Amino acid sequence: MGGDNAPGDVVAGAVEAARHGGVQIMLVGDPEPVQTELARYDTEQLPISIIPSEGVLVEGEPPALALRQKPRASIFVATGMVKQGHADASVSMGSTGGAMAAAAVVLGLSQGVDRPALGGPILGVAPKTFIIDLGTNVDCRPTQLLSFAVMGDVFARQFWAVEQPRVAMLSVGAEAGKGNRQVRETTELLKKSGLNFIGNVEGDDLAAGKAEVVVCDGFVGNIVMKLTEGLGRALSGHLRDTLSGKLSSDDLDTASNELHDLNNIVHTYGGGPIFGVNGISIVGHGAGNASAVRRAIGTAKYMHDIDFVPKLNEEMAEVYARVHEGAPS
Amino acid sequence: MGGDNAPGDVVAGAVEAARHGGVQIMLVGDPEPVQTELARYDTEQLPISIIPSEGVLVEGEPPALALRQKPRASIFVATGMVKQGHADASVSMGSTGGAMAAAAVVLGLSQGVDRPALGGPILGVAPKTFIIDLGTNVDCRPTQLLSFAVMGDVFARQFWAVEQPRVAMLSVGAEAGKGNRQVRETTELLKKSGLNFIGNVEGDDLAAGKAEVVVCDGFVGNIVMKLTEGLGRALSGHLRDTLSGKLSSDDLDTASNELHDLNNIVHTYGGGPIFGVNGISIVGHGAGNASAVRRAIGTAKYMHDIDFVPKLNEEMAEVYARVHEGAPS
Repeated sequence: MGGDNAPGDVVAGAVEAARHGGVQIMLVGDPEPVQTELARYDTEQLPISIIPSEGVLVEGEPPALALRQKPRASIFVATGMVKQGHADASVSMGSTGGAMAAAAVVLGLSQGVDRPALGGPILGVAPKTFIIDLGTNVDCRPTQLLSFAVMGDVFARQFWAVEQPRVAMLSVGAEAGKGNRQVRETTELLKKSGLNFIGNVEGDDLAAGKAEVVVCDGFVGNIVMKLTEGLGRALSGHLRDTLSGKLSSDDLDTASNELHDLNNIVHTYGGGPIFGVNGISIVGHGAGNASAVRRAIGTAKYMHDIDFVPKLNEEMAEVYARVHEGAPS
Repeated sequence: MGGDNAPGDVVAGAVEAARHGGVQIMLVGDPEPVQTELARYDTEQLPISIIPSEGVLVEGEPPALALRQKPRASIFVATGMVKQGHADASVSMGSTGGAMAAAAVVLGLSQGVDRPALGGPILGVAPKTFIIDLGTNVDCRPTQLLSFAVMGDVFARQFWAVEQPRVAMLSVGAEAGKGNRQVRETTELLKKSGLNFIGNVEGDDLAAGKAEVVVCDGFVGNIVMKLTEGLGRALSGHLRDTLSGKLSSDDLDTASNELHDLNNIVHTYGGGPIFGVNGISIVGHGAGNASAVRRAIGTAKYMHDIDFVPKLNEEMAEVYARVHEGAPS
């Protein structure tokens, strides 16, 4: 029920996934509108069922309050099905805050994790650079940033089959010691972590793909993500003005649309996993269309197929043990 | 003597400024190479002289050490001439660290300022949005961020003739209270400052020009600036690949160069003032060419003509008095 285009696009994407994606779909939502949407498709042979829920969390609604007032909202019911083992993963197109709260409260946190995190290869120009955290956590302690590094490392290994992902801290200078207090303190932990820690990267290194995993406070990561989106939109308009009449309208559309949507997660993955919870929960962009929903479901399936959550928990335990023992990497 | 293209481009830009910019030029540097460059031009009628110095600070050289080891380096001599009243402003093409150290030590800090700052309208897509600090100061205390706000306010008033510049904090949510501890604490000061404080802006608001002055910790501002530059370079190459053969090579060059250089300061101002010191010191981009040098000199002249430094000191005193008294804005 979440997202700007629910339930229409959510149902459409789910039907596609049921037809071609090798998954069974349970649509969690207000039965009537969901049934109405579902009736548009020939689903007789498809593994699709409807699980009734009541209400929906909207963007900006305080999740803790919502959990008390709307315990049967779709996001809580869907996440609960994962917890109870009736589903292998939940997928939601928002709100992000609601999906994260549901994941944290209902699925529970991984060992060593204080709060869940969001991360992803947000830059289309560097599609193999995973940036974490993207805004969930601010004023992070160094141990939190260490946990982000592990989340990114497992993502890069499992999604991209990179054997020794390069893990870096986002900072204001490449040299060791450059940065703020948070960076310097986290650097000490990362050195002991056993991860392939390559030191600092700077803002311009992000677009150059100098590391597979870039760790930062959510305050910084959120600004990186939104600045990228904002620049993309502004440049797209600018390019359209500048090149109008000089390119075929098809070519102009292609070039300008590419710039408009510089945030890569939606395009490639449809949505991002919530990291650090004991179960799979994918949250997509609220504006995602049916195709984004379909890709988000694919991402959920992939995470299940590769045992992402157990692997993350395992590596988290190993890294924390190393850091705690102070063993050299 | 500083910058990648010194003394050639520096002399060339200075000659242009002496010819057409309404300024007297004193070239501070090793006399021999400077004289060699100067001899390329017909300067007989121009107000240009050479002031000898010894050595040059290179990028990354610790300025405090350099000040002891190379007290006659060009940046220290040039800044000293401003201090002694022999010059109205100094202009350098780097190193940034050296120029800032020289400005702080030789010119001294404005009242209420702990460390100098760098700021500027870095985004070409939002040329009337001044972002400060750009990397000089990390782990800033709220009073430092307050001083950045005043610097930006005076810049927007004096350079752009904006009567009530909109001053905003860069954060991860537009609503009051969203952000990290630093943002929340600074917000309390800004509310009392008498500035036209409009609250938080987010990363995507930067490109949309939602405020004339955006205040942030230098850690964040530096990443914003470098990410912008890095995205520009990456997108420029991408555009070139995508549109090659579909546009005339001139149009392709124009579109791709525009993206390549998304950092606007160099193009428009040639360099940025060092804010918070008792005198005018402009630091340009190390890679700046003669034209950038010429523009940086023009910026220095403009700052002198409008009495920028006294005005900044005046407003700084007023704002600090207001905040200190706790008077409502």
